[in-house]
Amino acid sequence: MKFSPLVDELIQSLRVLPGVGPKSAQRMAFQLLERERKAGLKLADSLQKAMSDVGHCQGCRTFTEETLCPICASNKRGNAEVICVVETPADVLAIEAGGHFTGRYFVLLGHLSPLDGVGPEQLGLALLEQQLSSNDVTELILATNPTVEGDATAHFIADMARRHNVVISRIAHGVPVGGELEYVDSTTLALSFNGRIKL
Amino acid sequence: MKFSPLVDELIQSLRVLPGVGPKSAQRMAFQLLERERKAGLKLADSLQKAMSDVGHCQGCRTFTEETLCPICASNKRGNAEVICVVETPADVLAIEAGGHFTGRYFVLLGHLSPLDGVGPEQLGLALLEQQLSSNDVTELILATNPTVEGDATAHFIADMARRHNVVISRIAHGVPVGGELEYVDSTTLALSFNGRIKL
Repeated sequence: MKFSPLVDELIQSLRVLPGVGPKSAQRMAFQLLERERKAGLKLADSLQKAMSDVGHCQGCRTFTEETLCPICASNKRGNAEVICVVETPADVLAIEAGGHFTGRYFVLLGHLSPLDGVGPEQLGLALLEQQLSSNDVTELILATNPTVEGDATAHFIADMARRHNVVISRIAHGVPVGGELEYVDSTTLALSFNGRIKL
Repeated sequence: MKFSPLVDELIQSLRVLPGVGPKSAQRMAFQLLERERKAGLKLADSLQKAMSDVGHCQGCRTFTEETLCPICASNKRGNAEVICVVETPADVLAIEAGGHFTGRYFVLLGHLSPLDGVGPEQLGLALLEQQLSSNDVTELILATNPTVEGDATAHFIADMARRHNVVISRIAHGVPVGGELEYVDSTTLALSFNGRIKL
């Protein structure tokens, strides 16, 4: 026995969300039906609008429904000639939360992964190169994740950027603040020794 | 910094789902925007239809967009004169999965909880009493959860049903099949001794 068609369809549809299996989807559907009908309708409306209208910023490729995202459109950024390359829009948020970086971003929306069909084209590297060749970029900070794929992507972009007159840098990897040496993995420790700074 | 309005709104709206915090909502929104636009639109559509059209079965109160749910509408149920009272539609599914029960259900959609404003009226007990007094019900099986609230609800309904000519029973509590005695809590063990069956 299953539920009635509309309820079944809702449970199936909810499973598209990451981390939501059959039991969670069922729980979500019943919670919405029992107590949150209005919020459910609001979610349907938000989804509909976002899926239809949200595109990519023509400057940095992050998600926005405008031509340019708030950061690219802003003329109050102190270091607009510095571009920080990140993998996802969430990374932009994490860096912005610190408030120390005042340049612009370039969002790859992924990392190089030939087996999954993700090459330079999917990461919008042509757009990045176009920005590099426009001469008003002085530094390119590579802030992809410190994973095998993230490192490979950073190296690939660095090779590309060397053809242009910009400083290329990679964010430092090492022992996180508040972390204890005892619990840090050996690769991170090795990186923190290699990247030591003279006092 | 936040994301663009539509993306922010989507992330906020997703938080209505149970168990979804700010980080999960963000991850869900980006996953949908990056890879699952079509499924996202489908979800919006399913939500919209379910929130607007799904009501309660006039027989058992479970969720359905019809007047009667498939079980209440079926005339192939072997024991239509037995009613099993459960707390949620998911409980119906769990019992139906076994296939051993062929009666009808009555879904409370909750349990008695005076502090939360859930009384006999919210659980639809008037409708249940109406069914009991119609004389074609022979047994009422109370299958509410074995929690304090579930037990209280079962006792309340039993008191109500005693006014009618029906057998009232409560599902057995004890050691689950495949469980090990060593790991079963003492209350369950006590219940399994009290409810022992002569061989």
